[in-house]
Amino acid sequence: MLAISHRGLEMPASPIRKLVPYAEAAKKRGTKVYHLNIGQPDIETPKMVLDAVRHSEFTILAYSHSAGNESYREKLVKYYAGVGIQVTADQIIVTTGGSEAIQFGFLACMDSGDEVIIPEPFYANYNGFAVAAGVKVVPVTSHIENGFALPPIEEIEKKITPRTKAIVICNPNNPTGYCYSREEMEQLKTLILKYQLYLFSDEAYREFCYEETQVSAMHLSGVDEHVIIMDTISKRYSACGGRIGAFITKNKSVLEAVMKFAQARLSPPSFAQIAGEAAIDLPADYFDTTKAEYKSRRDLIVQRLNAMENVYCPNPGGAFYAMAKLPIDDADKFCQWLLESFSYEGQTLMLAPATGFYSTPGLGKQEVRLAYVLNLNDINNAMNCLEKALIEYNSKK
Amino acid sequence: MLAISHRGLEMPASPIRKLVPYAEAAKKRGTKVYHLNIGQPDIETPKMVLDAVRHSEFTILAYSHSAGNESYREKLVKYYAGVGIQVTADQIIVTTGGSEAIQFGFLACMDSGDEVIIPEPFYANYNGFAVAAGVKVVPVTSHIENGFALPPIEEIEKKITPRTKAIVICNPNNPTGYCYSREEMEQLKTLILKYQLYLFSDEAYREFCYEETQVSAMHLSGVDEHVIIMDTISKRYSACGGRIGAFITKNKSVLEAVMKFAQARLSPPSFAQIAGEAAIDLPADYFDTTKAEYKSRRDLIVQRLNAMENVYCPNPGGAFYAMAKLPIDDADKFCQWLLESFSYEGQTLMLAPATGFYSTPGLGKQEVRLAYVLNLNDINNAMNCLEKALIEYNSKK
Repeated sequence: MLAISHRGLEMPASPIRKLVPYAEAAKKRGTKVYHLNIGQPDIETPKMVLDAVRHSEFTILAYSHSAGNESYREKLVKYYAGVGIQVTADQIIVTTGGSEAIQFGFLACMDSGDEVIIPEPFYANYNGFAVAAGVKVVPVTSHIENGFALPPIEEIEKKITPRTKAIVICNPNNPTGYCYSREEMEQLKTLILKYQLYLFSDEAYREFCYEETQVSAMHLSGVDEHVIIMDTISKRYSACGGRIGAFITKNKSVLEAVMKFAQARLSPPSFAQIAGEAAIDLPADYFDTTKAEYKSRRDLIVQRLNAMENVYCPNPGGAFYAMAKLPIDDADKFCQWLLESFSYEGQTLMLAPATGFYSTPGLGKQEVRLAYVLNLNDINNAMNCLEKALIEYNSKK
Repeated sequence: MLAISHRGLEMPASPIRKLVPYAEAAKKRGTKVYHLNIGQPDIETPKMVLDAVRHSEFTILAYSHSAGNESYREKLVKYYAGVGIQVTADQIIVTTGGSEAIQFGFLACMDSGDEVIIPEPFYANYNGFAVAAGVKVVPVTSHIENGFALPPIEEIEKKITPRTKAIVICNPNNPTGYCYSREEMEQLKTLILKYQLYLFSDEAYREFCYEETQVSAMHLSGVDEHVIIMDTISKRYSACGGRIGAFITKNKSVLEAVMKFAQARLSPPSFAQIAGEAAIDLPADYFDTTKAEYKSRRDLIVQRLNAMENVYCPNPGGAFYAMAKLPIDDADKFCQWLLESFSYEGQTLMLAPATGFYSTPGLGKQEVRLAYVLNLNDINNAMNCLEKALIEYNSKK
């Protein structure tokens, strides 16, 4: 019978993208929409990164090595050494975005029916990759009241069953912006050693820690067999469309298994590997400049949010997301209303309802995620809109 | 416990790539290796296709739409109309290579334990995507004696069980080069209607049919809900490294389900979408030239092979592969021997043992696949090597 698979039906629609038709309609009406809903930075991709592709001289756009160009992987070794991670080129498999690194990890380390523990709220697409792989996501709730710190380790331990194979963290965190401390990372280490679990660490926002230096899962000692890093050039160099990421581990069996999945899809994109390789030669102050820009945006958005009546936004230590608790009944309804029924001086804003980042039903109904990927002026305008919107939304009821 | 998943263990290593270390060793010894093992053409990517990327002027390498750029999909509509396929832009989802189109189809239409029927020998990576999706591949054997025509439809029908969800064909076929006739396609149509199955049609080599015009699965009438086309720019424009393909169907439910998988991985690569879009504006004679080149290579390789003692190579109607039966005991052993222990005037050749393309154990042990992706001179040299090699290999026993 012609039918959609169960996983096809269960697959969640993107919580970030499902409001897009309302945004398009608003734009058609002439309303300016500030996009704080998606992690697509307005910061330009460094010119030398794009130029590397534009000035490339090959004549055949050929398959690369399934693990990615060796020249690129050798450069990545230097990049990782620079952030205190000692790996060799054959411990790196270049992937099609961070997305594919997540997918490879789930497929190689977990079977259908296995469980993965993830602190919620979490990057919504972990859910999608889990459904695709038949893996069950077991959430442990972190809370806005303490800035979304790692839930108490006993809470995580309680969720471990014989089917638990891994813990996934995103550090710095999307959507909360939280940076896990050395102490929290050591607690996770104790747990993965005690129960022989994998630790998948999504470190897409490594450079964007505003108060401290990121503690990588690969900075932990004695857990080489357990740790898998999922990485991407998307946010680091404002190169989301390149679709280049990396799967990194020192576990040989995992590398061998992942390599077979990598061979099946032949190779990662060739053009963007050139871009990624060039990016590693960016001047040392590149991240200083970018980080300073994001920090000033964070400072502004957090200040503006907390100045609004009954709004609470903990100060996120990293990435470029802020989670805010708003005086609203239903974040999904509110975000749709912002696009469908509200405007202030011809402008409105698009936010991501937090419900999509929680796995436990009913959580996040008063929370939204704001991606501070716009310049200070736009953020100010968007916050003006939000301030007016909250008053108007609540006065209507 | 830290372990590799069952699917990670079951995942087949690439039969094409597993001989690579032997080829590398041969090159280190100074032996020239003719690569007839892999479908990486030596034909240059059209300059205007690469130039479109090199002359692009955007400043942010941003995510594209999850279904691919609308401008590209609109252009694809025109391309497909040109090959007699009437589709709209929203029936096309741009994918990361044809590989992802296969993966999306398997995930959206089949659950773990479901079955897919594929005429063997078949493109080896179908196996990989099936293992990743937990889907069981049920082979129906086609035979070199009749040029790998579609197996009798009763043979296929016998394999259908309540778990059968789809039939996969590759047309023109990789690895056999066979082009399915209108009659064979109509037989498949009868079957998919009778048993309500999906027909996945991999049409990567559509333009490369040397005697007739390709019969697309989308040329069949009355099966719009059943047919899914998996496509790619890789071979068509010698652009394998772009990693741009397409998933095409008129089945709305399938499109909706696949769109969720597409959203989870965010977007296909941006650079190569520009290349793909430019390719559609290539002059009308582009394929004439390319096809003529491949045809002359085919004619040469088939003639050379059949002139060798006890070698049989049916004339492949399309793609750029030929399957040949050789007077050897074991294709895997022979292909490794060619790289490890043989050279003629400092040269040898790399072939793909056919065993990797059969799902039934023991089949293909005397067959190899030759990709005629090299120029006529190189093909002649490679055939000189093969001729000598067969004599030497057999005299040693």
